Amino acid sequence: MPARNAARNGRPRIPEATVSRLPVYLRALLELVGEQVPTVSSERLAELAGVNAAKVRKDLSYLGSYGTRGVGYDVSFLVDQVGRELGMTRDWPVVIVGLGNLGRALANYRGFSNRGFRVAALLDTDPALIGEQVGDRPVRHIDELEAAVAEEGAAVGIIATTAASAQEVADRLVRAGVTAILNFAPVVLSVPDNVSLRKVDLAIELQILTFYQNQQNRLCPAATPSP
Amino acid sequence: MPARNAARNGRPRIPEATVSRLPVYLRALLELVGEQVPTVSSERLAELAGVNAAKVRKDLSYLGSYGTRGVGYDVSFLVDQVGRELGMTRDWPVVIVGLGNLGRALANYRGFSNRGFRVAALLDTDPALIGEQVGDRPVRHIDELEAAVAEEGAAVGIIATTAASAQEVADRLVRAGVTAILNFAPVVLSVPDNVSLRKVDLAIELQILTFYQNQQNRLCPAATPSP
Repeated sequence: MPARNAARNGRPRIPEATVSRLPVYLRALLELVGEQVPTVSSERLAELAGVNAAKVRKDLSYLGSYGTRGVGYDVSFLVDQVGRELGMTRDWPVVIVGLGNLGRALANYRGFSNRGFRVAALLDTDPALIGEQVGDRPVRHIDELEAAVAEEGAAVGIIATTAASAQEVADRLVRAGVTAILNFAPVVLSVPDNVSLRKVDLAIELQILTFYQNQQNRLCPAATPSP
Repeated sequence: MPARNAARNGRPRIPEATVSRLPVYLRALLELVGEQVPTVSSERLAELAGVNAAKVRKDLSYLGSYGTRGVGYDVSFLVDQVGRELGMTRDWPVVIVGLGNLGRALANYRGFSNRGFRVAALLDTDPALIGEQVGDRPVRHIDELEAAVAEEGAAVGIIATTAASAQEVADRLVRAGVTAILNFAPVVLSVPDNVSLRKVDLAIELQILTFYQNQQNRLCPAATPSP
């Protein structure tokens, strides 16, 4: 009974919007670790994460972190805390299906490994790709999907196939035991309720960017004289 | 004077969180258009967008859209309205710098064109790539960056280079007149205040996904008997 267990943990449920900001905080914190910065104020963390300081303090309070007045938050303690919340303390083997340009970019992506994600297997249907080394793994035939998931104990699958193949791949990943799927294919997938699914849309970031651009043009049209 | 103009537009400023959801609504709405669905309830739109219905109604109210009780929102009207807000009514020529796997994936990405983004120029430093056709554009030498931006009237630049080159590329894009930059390089860039900048981190989506996975494991550990 999730609700009862949650209550027993003695913590309120973390709001979805906070969850979506935790990785952003973590990225900022990892940058500070890299710069050997020992403590950080909520203002500085807010600046790095692109939100306001009150929101940072509120978000971190859900994790039971309140910082020290005049000092701020201990960076490495906060990394542990946010990292634990994000499941970083365990190793997450990831299988990538579809080794087109995007799949290759993901297989070579350096941002995964320092955050607990290990590319464990690469799968494709194209006979010409099988056996090719991408990153540090060989591409395996899609027929080995079930075996690869089992061997690696992979709970996470990334779908970087065409839209047409994506649902079939998702079904196979789920049957093989994957419980979290990140979908880059431009199609809406359906998965059972116990499987977490997120869809990444590369155009969305561009749209947010141009929204602000558009607002700026509207508010400050270059050709309009000041009132 | 932005504040004064904003007031004159007679509309409150749209909150940042709402802005970040508008492209998600738009994507869901474009799917409905594809399925020739004429109207949509806030509940259905909420389901497609992965938020709650009250939030959808609140968000759309900032745009002056309130729907019709018992009928819902007119899909094509809402597409126009959200699209206008996102700057989709104009054509956004985009230059992509860096034609590695990720740059290629972006140059070939089909989700851009139906949302107003046109890949106008591709630039790289690697002599072996110059002249190669990627998507439907040839790769040009980085020395032509300024010329390409001017010819195409590009306001948007996508950086898909290595971390080491990204700041220099950003500086050149800004000097050439680009006012919105989407950065995929794993590095924090600095740009002048009048330039919009967003950083895409492919590991963030994975972390949100595994956070929920982790919560589920914590709440419902497979090996723990029911209380």
